[in-house]
Amino acid sequence: MTRPVLVNAFDMNTPTHLVSGTWRHPDSHAWRYKDLAYWTDLARLLERGLFDGLFIADVLGVYDVYAGNPDAALRGGVQIPVNDPLMLVSAMAFVTEHLGLAVTASTSFEHPFPFARRMSTLDHLTNGRVGWNIVTSYLDSGARNIGLDTQVRHDERYEIANEYMDVLYKLWEGSWQDDAVQRDRGSGIFTDPAKVHAINHEGRYFKVPGIHVSEPSPQRTPLLFQAGTSDRGKDFAAAHAEAVFVGAPTAAILRAQVADIRARAQAHGRDPHDIKVFSGYTVITGETDREAQAKHDLYRSYVEPEGMLALWSGWLGFDLSVYDLDDPLRVVPNQAIQSTAETFGRGDWKVRDLVERLGFGDGPIAVGSPATVADAIQEWLEETDADGLNLGHVVTPASYADFADLVVPELQRRGAYRKAYEPGTLRHKLFRRGDRLPGNHPAAGFRIPLSRPDAPQP
Amino acid sequence: MTRPVLVNAFDMNTPTHLVSGTWRHPDSHAWRYKDLAYWTDLARLLERGLFDGLFIADVLGVYDVYAGNPDAALRGGVQIPVNDPLMLVSAMAFVTEHLGLAVTASTSFEHPFPFARRMSTLDHLTNGRVGWNIVTSYLDSGARNIGLDTQVRHDERYEIANEYMDVLYKLWEGSWQDDAVQRDRGSGIFTDPAKVHAINHEGRYFKVPGIHVSEPSPQRTPLLFQAGTSDRGKDFAAAHAEAVFVGAPTAAILRAQVADIRARAQAHGRDPHDIKVFSGYTVITGETDREAQAKHDLYRSYVEPEGMLALWSGWLGFDLSVYDLDDPLRVVPNQAIQSTAETFGRGDWKVRDLVERLGFGDGPIAVGSPATVADAIQEWLEETDADGLNLGHVVTPASYADFADLVVPELQRRGAYRKAYEPGTLRHKLFRRGDRLPGNHPAAGFRIPLSRPDAPQP
Repeated sequence: MTRPVLVNAFDMNTPTHLVSGTWRHPDSHAWRYKDLAYWTDLARLLERGLFDGLFIADVLGVYDVYAGNPDAALRGGVQIPVNDPLMLVSAMAFVTEHLGLAVTASTSFEHPFPFARRMSTLDHLTNGRVGWNIVTSYLDSGARNIGLDTQVRHDERYEIANEYMDVLYKLWEGSWQDDAVQRDRGSGIFTDPAKVHAINHEGRYFKVPGIHVSEPSPQRTPLLFQAGTSDRGKDFAAAHAEAVFVGAPTAAILRAQVADIRARAQAHGRDPHDIKVFSGYTVITGETDREAQAKHDLYRSYVEPEGMLALWSGWLGFDLSVYDLDDPLRVVPNQAIQSTAETFGRGDWKVRDLVERLGFGDGPIAVGSPATVADAIQEWLEETDADGLNLGHVVTPASYADFADLVVPELQRRGAYRKAYEPGTLRHKLFRRGDRLPGNHPAAGFRIPLSRPDAPQP
Repeated sequence: MTRPVLVNAFDMNTPTHLVSGTWRHPDSHAWRYKDLAYWTDLARLLERGLFDGLFIADVLGVYDVYAGNPDAALRGGVQIPVNDPLMLVSAMAFVTEHLGLAVTASTSFEHPFPFARRMSTLDHLTNGRVGWNIVTSYLDSGARNIGLDTQVRHDERYEIANEYMDVLYKLWEGSWQDDAVQRDRGSGIFTDPAKVHAINHEGRYFKVPGIHVSEPSPQRTPLLFQAGTSDRGKDFAAAHAEAVFVGAPTAAILRAQVADIRARAQAHGRDPHDIKVFSGYTVITGETDREAQAKHDLYRSYVEPEGMLALWSGWLGFDLSVYDLDDPLRVVPNQAIQSTAETFGRGDWKVRDLVERLGFGDGPIAVGSPATVADAIQEWLEETDADGLNLGHVVTPASYADFADLVVPELQRRGAYRKAYEPGTLRHKLFRRGDRLPGNHPAAGFRIPLSRPDAPQP
C-alpha cells in the first residue's frame, strides 16, 4: 500500500523564519509578513496544493544569546520583529474552506481562562479547523518581559503546562454539554443553565471556579500539536499531542524518535498511531534536477551567516559568537531546546554546518526534480515511520508554490497524496473518526458524563 | 455650519448584546455571532454606510449578580456565551478598506507585554484602522476565574491601568525609531539595532526590561477609546482617551458629562476637542414615522424582561431579582459601573423602566422616519456637544442596515454626514492631523527623542 504523505507548511509572522538572508531574494515575500494579503495569498496557495495545514511558529522574545545581545537577530530580521500569529487566523479562514490553521501559543504567558476563550473563538470562526501548538517557551528574554526574573526551570514548566491543560480540558470538554445551547425561539431559551457547569478548578498554579464563556465549538479542544522532545517534553506530547513535529538530520535518528513517541503514546493508553508525526523537511524543486540544483545554489548565495548563528545560539542555548566556523560543535547542556542539543551533541558537526544547512533547522533537504523529491520524501517516510512533513521554506511563498505545482502532482500520480479534501474538521480530516478527541485521550476524562456521574447525559 | 455626525456601530461577540430576546426576531442574525460570515457581512454593511467604525464590546465573565447566579443570563444568551473580539478583526479588515475596528480589552487580564504585540499586529494587518477600548473590568466573575479572590478595588484598578498604559506607550512609541526598519536588500540589514531601544520599565506592578517585538505600525498606539465615567475613570479618560463613549438618558445629563470631559482634557494640557465623544444611541427607522413605530412595537414584543434585569443587575452591581417591576429604583453605591449607577440614582425611575428601555443601555432612542430621526440626532448633538453616536442595535444587522439605507442619505442631504471616506488611518480619519498621537498626549512623553535625549533623532 502506498503511504499517504501529510504536509503542513511551516511559517512564522516575521521576516525571517528559518533561513537568514533569503528575504532579500526577489521572489521572497517574507518581508510582507505584516500585510494581511501575504497571509491570505499564502492560505489560498496552500489550499490549492491540498496541504493539511499551515503551522505558524512563534516566540515572544528575542534571540539574544548570540554575543549576548539581540543585534544580530535584529540586523537579519531573524524572528524579530515578530507579530502575533493568532491575529492572522480569521482572515485566512475567510479565504479558505479546508486548510488547517495551527498556531503556536505558550502555556507560560497567558492565563488559561482567557486563552481557552481565544481558542474556542478561533475554532468557531474556522468551523473546526484550528490547531494549537503547545509550547512552554524557551527564550529567557520572553520570561523577563513578563516580570519573571529567570525562566521557570524546564521541568517545572511542564508541571505548570500539565495543570494548564487540565484547566483547558475542563473548560473545553467539561463545562457545556453538547445540547446546552438550545437556541429555541419558541421558549426564548438560548442556553439551558442546567447543562452548563462550573469547573471548580483549584490546583497548585491555577484557580478557576467558573464556567467556560464560549459555547462548544466544532472540535471543542483544538487539534493539539506539540514539539517538545526533551524527556519531559516527549512525555507531555505522548499524553496530550495528536500531532508532533520533530526535526532530525538522519533517518536513523528520526526513526528512533518516532518509535519512542509511539511507544510512549502506548504507555499512556493510546494507540501508537494516535499521534501523527510531522518531520521537519525542506524541498527545493524545479522542472529538472539541474534546475533545482541551480535554484538551491542561488538561494544559498543569499544566506547570511550571522543571522543563522543567532538562531542556532537561541535554539542550542549557548553563544556561538565565540567560535570559528571550523570549530567542532561542542554542545553544552542547558535549558534550551534539548532535542536539538542532543542531535548535535552526537556526530561530527562543525559550527559551519549550522550556517550551511539550508532549510528547516535540523531536518533534511531534498533538492531535485519532482520525481527526485517525491522519491526522497517517500523513502524518508518509509524509513522513519513518520506520517508527513512539516515543510519549511527557504523562500516564501515560492518554496510552497513549487511544492504545490510540481511535487504534489507527482505524489498524486503515485497515489501518495490526496486529490481532494475530506469534509469535516481538521481533526476529522486527519484521523477520520469524528470531530472530537477520542475516549482514550486524557481530555475525555473531563467530559461531563465521566467526571460528573450525576449530570444528565448529553 | 452643519455639525458632522460621527457614527460607530456597537456590537459584541455574543447572541444578546443590549436587548434581551430580540435574537428571536426573524431578521436577527445575532445568534450567528460565532460564524465568520456574520462579521464580514456586518463589516461590509457598515462600510457601505460609511460608518466611522465598528466598536466591539466585551466582558470576560458572566452576569451573575441577578439572583446570585448566571442562569438568567444563560437562558437569554445575555452576553454569554461571549467570544473573543480580537479574533474577528483580520477577517473584517480583509473585506473592508476604511472601516475602523475597535475592540475592547481589559488591563486586568493580560500582561502588557504580549498585549502590546497583539495590538501592534492588528494595527499592521488593518493598515492602521484599529482602536482599543480600554476597560479595567467590572465583573467579579471574571476576576475570580483568573485566580483573584476578589476584584481589585476600583481605584487600584486605575492605578494599575495607568502603569499598564505607561508600559504600552514605552513599547509602542519609545522602543523602535521610525527608521529602525531599513529592509535594505543591498546591505542585508533588516533592522538597525542602534535604533531599537529596550524600555527598561520597572514599576510597581510591571517589570519589562526588553524591546517591543513588533516594528512600528501605522498608528503605533491604536486609537484609544474609553468609557469609564466614575471620577477616576473620567480622569483616566481625560488623560488618555481620544474617543469616549458615554450613555445618558437626557440631553441635560449628557451635556454636563461632555462639558466635564472636555474640561478635564484641558486640565490635562489637551485641547477640549482632542476627545471625540460618542453618545450611546438607538435608532428604529422606516420609510414613515408610522412604519418605524410599528417596527418599534414589534421589536418591543420580543423583549425578554428577565434577561434585561440580568444585564442591569450586572451594570448597576446589585441584584434586581428581589424587586417588583413597579418598585422605585434605589441604587446602592458599589464597585460596578458608577456612571450608570449615578444616572439612575437621580430621577424618578422604576425597575420597570430598565426593562422597557429598548436599546442602548441608558441612552436615548429615536423612532421615526429618516427625517424624524435625523432631526432628533442633530438636535441631540447640538444640545449636548457630543461628536457622534455609539449606535446600539435592537435587531442586528437590521438596525444598522436601516440606518445605512435610510438615515445616512437623509443626513448626507443635510450636509451632516460624509459622502466618502478620507484616506488614511483611523486616527487620521477622525482628527485630520496624521497617523500618530499628537505631541500633547501623554504617550508622546515616551517617544525616543523626548525620553532619550541622547538617542539619535529618527
